[in-house]
Amino acid sequence: MTLGIGLIGTGFMGKAHALAWRNARAVLGTVPEVRLELLCDTPADKATGFASQFGFARSTDDWRALVTDPQVDIVSITTPNRFHKEMALAALAAGKHVWCEKPMGLTLADGEAMAAAAAASGKTTMVGYNYIRNPAFRHAQKLVEAGRIGRLVHVRGIVDEDYQADPDLAWTWRARLEEAGLGTLGDLGCHLVSMLTGLCGPIESLVADMQTVHTTRPLPDGSGRGAVENEDTATALLRFASGVHGSLSTSRSAWGRKNRLGFELHGTKGMLVFDQERMNELQLYVNEGPKAEQGFRTILSGPEHGVYGAFCPAPGHQVGFNDLKVIEAAELLTAITTGTRPHPDFAAALEFEKVIHGIAESARTGQRVVLG
Amino acid sequence: MTLGIGLIGTGFMGKAHALAWRNARAVLGTVPEVRLELLCDTPADKATGFASQFGFARSTDDWRALVTDPQVDIVSITTPNRFHKEMALAALAAGKHVWCEKPMGLTLADGEAMAAAAAASGKTTMVGYNYIRNPAFRHAQKLVEAGRIGRLVHVRGIVDEDYQADPDLAWTWRARLEEAGLGTLGDLGCHLVSMLTGLCGPIESLVADMQTVHTTRPLPDGSGRGAVENEDTATALLRFASGVHGSLSTSRSAWGRKNRLGFELHGTKGMLVFDQERMNELQLYVNEGPKAEQGFRTILSGPEHGVYGAFCPAPGHQVGFNDLKVIEAAELLTAITTGTRPHPDFAAALEFEKVIHGIAESARTGQRVVLG
Amino acid sequence: MTLGIGLIGTGFMGKAHALAWRNARAVLGTVPEVRLELLCDTPADKATGFASQFGFARSTDDWRALVTDPQVDIVSITTPNRFHKEMALAALAAGKHVWCEKPMGLTLADGEAMAAAAAASGKTTMVGYNYIRNPAFRHAQKLVEAGRIGRLVHVRGIVDEDYQADPDLAWTWRARLEEAGLGTLGDLGCHLVSMLTGLCGPIESLVADMQTVHTTRPLPDGSGRGAVENEDTATALLRFASGVHGSLSTSRSAWGRKNRLGFELHGTKGMLVFDQERMNELQLYVNEGPKAEQGFRTILSGPEHGVYGAFCPAPGHQVGFNDLKVIEAAELLTAITTGTRPHPDFAAALEFEKVIHGIAESARTGQRVVLG
Amino acid sequence: MTLGIGLIGTGFMGKAHALAWRNARAVLGTVPEVRLELLCDTPADKATGFASQFGFARSTDDWRALVTDPQVDIVSITTPNRFHKEMALAALAAGKHVWCEKPMGLTLADGEAMAAAAAASGKTTMVGYNYIRNPAFRHAQKLVEAGRIGRLVHVRGIVDEDYQADPDLAWTWRARLEEAGLGTLGDLGCHLVSMLTGLCGPIESLVADMQTVHTTRPLPDGSGRGAVENEDTATALLRFASGVHGSLSTSRSAWGRKNRLGFELHGTKGMLVFDQERMNELQLYVNEGPKAEQGFRTILSGPEHGVYGAFCPAPGHQVGFNDLKVIEAAELLTAITTGTRPHPDFAAALEFEKVIHGIAESARTGQRVVLG
Repeated sequence: MTLGIGLIGTGFMGKAHALAWRNARAVLGTVPEVRLELLCDTPADKATGFASQFGFARSTDDWRALVTDPQVDIVSITTPNRFHKEMALAALAAGKHVWCEKPMGLTLADGEAMAAAAAASGKTTMVGYNYIRNPAFRHAQKLVEAGRIGRLVHVRGIVDEDYQADPDLAWTWRARLEEAGLGTLGDLGCHLVSMLTGLCGPIESLVADMQTVHTTRPLPDGSGRGAVENEDTATALLRFASGVHGSLSTSRSAWGRKNRLGFELHGTKGMLVFDQERMNELQLYVNEGPKAEQGFRTILSGPEHGVYGAFCPAPGHQVGFNDLKVIEAAELLTAITTGTRPHPDFAAALEFEKVIHGIAESARTGQRVVLG
Repeated sequence: MTLGIGLIGTGFMGKAHALAWRNARAVLGTVPEVRLELLCDTPADKATGFASQFGFARSTDDWRALVTDPQVDIVSITTPNRFHKEMALAALAAGKHVWCEKPMGLTLADGEAMAAAAAASGKTTMVGYNYIRNPAFRHAQKLVEAGRIGRLVHVRGIVDEDYQADPDLAWTWRARLEEAGLGTLGDLGCHLVSMLTGLCGPIESLVADMQTVHTTRPLPDGSGRGAVENEDTATALLRFASGVHGSLSTSRSAWGRKNRLGFELHGTKGMLVFDQERMNELQLYVNEGPKAEQGFRTILSGPEHGVYGAFCPAPGHQVGFNDLKVIEAAELLTAITTGTRPHPDFAAALEFEKVIHGIAESARTGQRVVLG
Repeated sequence: MTLGIGLIGTGFMGKAHALAWRNARAVLGTVPEVRLELLCDTPADKATGFASQFGFARSTDDWRALVTDPQVDIVSITTPNRFHKEMALAALAAGKHVWCEKPMGLTLADGEAMAAAAAASGKTTMVGYNYIRNPAFRHAQKLVEAGRIGRLVHVRGIVDEDYQADPDLAWTWRARLEEAGLGTLGDLGCHLVSMLTGLCGPIESLVADMQTVHTTRPLPDGSGRGAVENEDTATALLRFASGVHGSLSTSRSAWGRKNRLGFELHGTKGMLVFDQERMNELQLYVNEGPKAEQGFRTILSGPEHGVYGAFCPAPGHQVGFNDLKVIEAAELLTAITTGTRPHPDFAAALEFEKVIHGIAESARTGQRVVLG
Repeated sequence: MTLGIGLIGTGFMGKAHALAWRNARAVLGTVPEVRLELLCDTPADKATGFASQFGFARSTDDWRALVTDPQVDIVSITTPNRFHKEMALAALAAGKHVWCEKPMGLTLADGEAMAAAAAASGKTTMVGYNYIRNPAFRHAQKLVEAGRIGRLVHVRGIVDEDYQADPDLAWTWRARLEEAGLGTLGDLGCHLVSMLTGLCGPIESLVADMQTVHTTRPLPDGSGRGAVENEDTATALLRFASGVHGSLSTSRSAWGRKNRLGFELHGTKGMLVFDQERMNELQLYVNEGPKAEQGFRTILSGPEHGVYGAFCPAPGHQVGFNDLKVIEAAELLTAITTGTRPHPDFAAALEFEKVIHGIAESARTGQRVVLG
């Protein structure tokens, strides 16, 4: 019996989920077939149009109908963040598996409620941290685990984009705490947390600073300027339980950066450097061989790296952004069919939320925040 | 009425075609739906397995049955080069549209026969030149057409991989002229020709040199060494009808290069530089603004570039190799439904074959070869 | 009447000063001639040998004789840090101008004493912050001042090397607070402070963290392991008086980094990025022109940038490390002959010392440190 | 007894020679002291001014007086190319050692006359090929000699600048064959020849093409347009005596390129890549270790590479363009004092001239040119 998919949302992430569901088995082979059962968006004709384009059997403009639909086994939630909690809770209550986009919600309480509901439900949950699916990133993890760069000692992460860099952009709901929650920390920062903790383990405590670069923006109706309530940039000093020290910095107002999500990971024997804007490359330096020949090497992703070979048997040919979502969908399917926990499920993703909300708290209070 | 797809082959390119057919409409939206009708490979159970994985309705181990199947409207040919001509001719004879992987065949005569059959058939044909679908490349073409770098004067292209770099690799049929035809020119060089002529127009004449780096290879059965009959590298001096001069160089024995397909295009006002190993980047230099601020700029692919936005609305998030095939499939579908000619159809692709075979001829004779 | 030079030290920085004195006028033209009068090192024959090599007229093994020598007008101090204060004070007391390498001393009190002595002396002083002499850096400052990237909002700086990365390196005096003072902050961090404040103005307050990666090292006599008392890494959250927020991070244990001194400077209209390991390049992104053509441009240093043209009239030919010291010497000479203050004199350099010692203090206490 | 230097010319290369003479011993230590004896330029007061700036004892506006001056032992010739032969012959006739800038002259006959005169004189001669002095390039040679990339099979070299890219630049004597000789081949191409033959040995034969991009230029007096008689671009297919095949391409009209002198060197075990615009970096790929970790490594120049350590004991701190000339001067001095031949002396440099004139000849005749 195949699994039925219900997808809520058809925007950036909605389309990415749709393509992921269409391709997981075709690419990876080892995962079960799914049925694209039901697509939800509003208004109804938009849902109908996208159902046809994406290949879903049916459409609806009522997400509550979707999460309770008997043909739906897995619910993909790709709506604005403020709807995540309600939808996820309803889907879990209806006995569905849930794949929810990040961040979990607007507040830490949202995330806690979702993790609690997931635990109570016994269903499989996953939050959409696509960048940690990248074969290049997975290879970095593998090198770390194999001790290739020695004991980890220091890490620096950044994640920047420029979608809020323009001072003349109009005010939107994204600027409101109540509607959008955190700013760059929720949009971008949590991705970086998923990577850094995936390399160095849990964060123990942190001290942070935040900044709203553009404190007001022109209201779209021309009636004046509206306040920007959430942060444009955030930076934190991190201490990991493993003893690693480091930093994390994020900005949504960084001109020229389009998806600059990267890290430098310092070990006692070498260093790893990664930048998502060149997502098919991994930089490795190891203190071995003649000094005169040492240097950072640029490793191009290829079949030796994770599931890259399922996309292409030739190295250097490159996977793209949507391919990351395909891997993610496949991992969820594998978890469901094998009864294991995908990473990150709601419980694990809650730890990421604790970090970004901890950063915001430390920035507000000026005090060190201890996690865990 | 939807179009039915028949796919021959399930390897590197077979899978790429399968994914392209699955995704063309889901991604691009504006193209018609297709039915994944029939998949062919040998032995039969391999075909069955891949039909299940790729989502084809039926499978067969008889390609002749496929090309004459009444439910099949378009035939994708992704088999080794030596089968291209026979399959394409049979498919055209059966009244099918044909999407054939490059190069067209082993000899120039193969290509000529295919182009003639295509012209006689009235069906739509296309050869699989995926790299020219890249939004970054299309943007380069657009900049050229807009005169952004002035009158074109010089171009240098290279395309290198290292799949034949290892001296200890065993001898295979790829080393035989009769079975494989040209070496690096057929595998890689023709892609570069598709790009250079897409930027500078047709090539008028050329002078070339070739080299077989590893002249023998160990026979797989351990019985000695077999001769390598085709070229590992080829380089040509090019003169374009437009007056542009330039060069083309290719190697399948270039250690470290995985998909190094790129060009430098020199104009009287600026320069464009591209490298497929960073396929989401385009380098542009323009002689404008203060000298103190001039420099090559790295443009990251985004929604402003061709159909990138159909894959992802956010810049810098990157399309991958398989996405190029999705664009290619969509272009073929559009051509079929609008009655236009896709690029390159068999006639246009024959011009690329003339160039690579002209290079081989010039290298053999030491004489300038005039094309056209 | 020409100025007489006395140089103490013949190591890395000693040689750099010697070459700078030899070349300042030959390169820049506009500065006065100097006499290479007296060179000091121990033992005496080492001083004699280097005096011959570097072209100094006389040599000595007694630095006190040098600083009081009547033929010496300017004293270059390039000895280990723990000697800086005593030598600088003696030279100033003897009525000499002083060019002292960074950092000023082991403690903040050292720097304060030196700044006080400089103020009392009326002589010209300068501390050896060579990286801010780089034409590429000066051009970055010029672009900032011209508003080319708008209002500055955020900055991130790093400075890394790997000279203490190897866990097996023997213990030396550099590990002792009493002999070496700060670790990476004194060696590397202060350079970064000179750059960041040169771009964003004075730092108002900071919060910081430090780490000793290798807490003990093998004693050179094989008798066991000695404690490393100073920091291998340090990271700080910075707030500038101008309102810019940012961070600074430094490590002397960062494998693969040889002189990784760089910054990202975020403005409301654009971004500037620099890395000393590619010291002849400056990266600039400006939000102007068509979106489809925006990208970071790599500006190669050339005659349009500061005094580059004095070294070479052709762009892209590159200045090197020693050339920075030539510019520095010329700036000191110009200041002396025009009666102006070079940057940074002891008073200005003391501000840099306050930052690095403030970082160390914050890291020890866990509290925000407010700078004067 | 020290050697006396006579320098003719004070422009780009004149200054570079002056600085080289000032610094050779101070930097390298192991070479003899020189006296900056006599500087020649016209008019006389220009010579006087630069003699003071560069530290020469005397000046003259009569180059014949310089080459016969009894205090002068070595003559540096840095004048426009059309004067090289006459000055070099006169200096050799006067019993001087000669360091002459490249190319040797306007015609192959010029070079032959100079090589013959050098051979007859018994004096030491050298032609100014500075780029082959680069520690990074020397290290590339060393790696090749050690077999680090296996048997050499293919090489591609380019050398581009953009000083003649602007269509609106006024006509000058550089456009005249009689006054300037070759175009980009003489200015830039011969440097590339010095590198490629330094890696792969002598070139046996070649086939080439040339192009004048801007065939006329506005006359400076506004009276119309003057013809450009020499080439803006040249490209050649090369066959080396060693069996290596390859190509060479050069342009003086390549927008954005400031000193783009580089090569890709393909061996049976690896590849080396170099670009003078990042002259302190060498890229090395070697087929060894796990496939998953292979990649081009960027080696930053450091004390392990040639004489880098004489400039700076710390890696990654970078030598600059003028430092190359310092190494060159030191090599000439060492050759003179040890009675050995520096590379390239007039005889060796004549081989480079044969290549560039051979390229021009092949381009004119359309025939393969076999070199002696």
